[in-house]
Amino acid sequence: MLATNLRVDRNRFLGRLAALARIGGSAEGGVQRMALTDGDKAGRDQLVAWFRAAGLTVHIDRIGNIVGVLPGETDLPPVMMGSHIDTVAHGGKYDGVLGVLAGLEVIETIRDSGVKPKRGLAVAAFTNEEGARFQPDMLGSYVWAGTFTVEDSYAIRDSDGKALGEELRRIGYAGTAEPGFLKPCAYLELHIEQGPILDAEGGGIGAVTGVQAIWWSEVTIEGEANHAGTTPMSYRRSAAMAAAELIAFAERLALEIPGTVANCGTIAFEPGNVNVVPRRAVFTLDIRNPDDESIRRVEARLTDCIAEIGARRGVGIARRDLARFAAQPFDEQMIGRVEAAATALGLPVRRMVSGAGHDAQALAPQVPTAMIFVPSVKGISHNPEELTGDDDLVAGANVLLVTALDLVTAA
Amino acid sequence: MLATNLRVDRNRFLGRLAALARIGGSAEGGVQRMALTDGDKAGRDQLVAWFRAAGLTVHIDRIGNIVGVLPGETDLPPVMMGSHIDTVAHGGKYDGVLGVLAGLEVIETIRDSGVKPKRGLAVAAFTNEEGARFQPDMLGSYVWAGTFTVEDSYAIRDSDGKALGEELRRIGYAGTAEPGFLKPCAYLELHIEQGPILDAEGGGIGAVTGVQAIWWSEVTIEGEANHAGTTPMSYRRSAAMAAAELIAFAERLALEIPGTVANCGTIAFEPGNVNVVPRRAVFTLDIRNPDDESIRRVEARLTDCIAEIGARRGVGIARRDLARFAAQPFDEQMIGRVEAAATALGLPVRRMVSGAGHDAQALAPQVPTAMIFVPSVKGISHNPEELTGDDDLVAGANVLLVTALDLVTAA
Repeated sequence: MLATNLRVDRNRFLGRLAALARIGGSAEGGVQRMALTDGDKAGRDQLVAWFRAAGLTVHIDRIGNIVGVLPGETDLPPVMMGSHIDTVAHGGKYDGVLGVLAGLEVIETIRDSGVKPKRGLAVAAFTNEEGARFQPDMLGSYVWAGTFTVEDSYAIRDSDGKALGEELRRIGYAGTAEPGFLKPCAYLELHIEQGPILDAEGGGIGAVTGVQAIWWSEVTIEGEANHAGTTPMSYRRSAAMAAAELIAFAERLALEIPGTVANCGTIAFEPGNVNVVPRRAVFTLDIRNPDDESIRRVEARLTDCIAEIGARRGVGIARRDLARFAAQPFDEQMIGRVEAAATALGLPVRRMVSGAGHDAQALAPQVPTAMIFVPSVKGISHNPEELTGDDDLVAGANVLLVTALDLVTAA
Repeated sequence: MLATNLRVDRNRFLGRLAALARIGGSAEGGVQRMALTDGDKAGRDQLVAWFRAAGLTVHIDRIGNIVGVLPGETDLPPVMMGSHIDTVAHGGKYDGVLGVLAGLEVIETIRDSGVKPKRGLAVAAFTNEEGARFQPDMLGSYVWAGTFTVEDSYAIRDSDGKALGEELRRIGYAGTAEPGFLKPCAYLELHIEQGPILDAEGGGIGAVTGVQAIWWSEVTIEGEANHAGTTPMSYRRSAAMAAAELIAFAERLALEIPGTVANCGTIAFEPGNVNVVPRRAVFTLDIRNPDDESIRRVEARLTDCIAEIGARRGVGIARRDLARFAAQPFDEQMIGRVEAAATALGLPVRRMVSGAGHDAQALAPQVPTAMIFVPSVKGISHNPEELTGDDDLVAGANVLLVTALDLVTAA
């Protein structure tokens, strides 16, 4: 039977969300706190101050992940919560921050309640989740999980040529703890959905079943530049027309293979004159599906289509991967715990796949993991207009509380 | 019976083509002599020197058109030949130049032959045919024809903000003659085809029946920016996917409505991130057909398709004209004269429509006009690789010679 008598301190929790949003807050109402900038440092300093004031032991690891720990009554592996506090260039107030401050709030609520948990509680703020300044994204959590090394990560440079390691030292967050030093029994991440589904369905809680597979491609089509007036259609090898056909095909694939989404987000033609048949078209495809096998089906169909269009139109078509992440399912038992906690709190809950990447996917292969989603109004995210209602924020924090409390009190 | 005993001076003619190609000649083998630049001035100076050396009276009109005149034995209206010597940014050696230097060559050949033509002969180099620096293109010939005024033309600015009138004065070619001061009985323009048809059919002469209608549009699609991972396909209003569908439709229209060509030469998405559904797409369409009625059919179909796609996808689609020229047929008798001259010279000749715009279209409404095309290897033009074989250049000049000679000797 889940203990549902505790509730987070609404004012303290919302107050901290508002306070952190002011650090790097922009005139347009959003937040600019890209990884390892002065804004990020200021946010980190505030976070560490709150962690210390809450009596947590604060560890900074070598990749700059900040981990606050409240010991339990036993040496059993602790329960870890977390997310990130870095933002994209023009971000909102909730992406990432919610999971970190809710984790802190849960720990304080449990501690203040007088409950003596068997297991310890930890809250992590992972470095550079957004990947907006240093690529790849989710760097801190993947280093924590051992997927990437600290040394390789230090060498990553931003677009100005500044190395991540130097920037980490500059802001004073190149710590000494070894990433992954804590071995939790479970990882829980509360996050805004960043998509429209919960909002469109009237709210409630998302019990996230995993992160879908992500496959980014760059497609380059080589045709022939020709005069757009004097060249009959049958003589043309237009890179533009081949691109339009292939992009339209990618959309049809997405509608045909269940669960698939496909986006063409960037495109360029060369030479780029109204009256010249483009000799070259370069565009990107972002294709996702919760299921790796479906991604393979999409890829096979796309490969066939590329060959067919190339042969029929007499153009060269090259495709290269820009990114490829397998689907990362979460732990079935953990997903069930989230559902049970929401239900126990009287909140509507639905299982859903995460369309975006999250720190949870880095930890999930090693630690039983789940995520809790709360609605994003109109699905808007990575945008100053990003909004989640106060009641939803608090509801999500309470689901995190009930789920974590059950885990730390169980043996 | 056509007089076919005369031939142009091959070496003199090809020598001048080579000499003019060196003025503004580029390392890549092409020519850069955009309108009213220092390069254009140097080319004009050379041309005027050749005109004077050939004994022509040189007139510079107020829009900078250069007209060399050899008087005839009578006051009957003269025969005019010509084209232009300005180039696009990375142009070739033959576009425009051929018609001007062939005109000069024809006049010298007739004069040197001792023939005393009843009618005078004139050769014109029209200002800013390409429209690469100042828009619109064919400016000098349209001013000559009275379609545009000199004053409006002087006010046109290039992308650096420089006014055409000032640039004309700066290079010393703001003349005093009134455009259109000469009223010819016929206008003949020899030009490279700039398309692949003659070359693909094994060479020969093109008797050009007219210039096709040209319709340029800019299409702007307004959708909604969304996260490309978290937004289900059914929630998306992708400007990119709407653009791909509409571009593919434009191509199908071109294949369906006989004689139509369609090009999408430029495109841009906003915001332009791999993982963001584009909120805006802007692209251009260049659609042409020899027949105005067919262009109207294309426009009607495109308008219907825009409305259907906009409604179905929930995106706003706006289309505006960037350019619109009606088809310009040439004079039937003049076309027949070109065919007869080529045939008399033993050259294969075929009627064909010009896919590109030319100075001839500006004069055609007022003066019986025809054009002579010679093959462009692989149809390449507006490119340093633009090539027409020497024999074809000379053959074209001889067709011009035979046609012009017949006109000036007739009463």
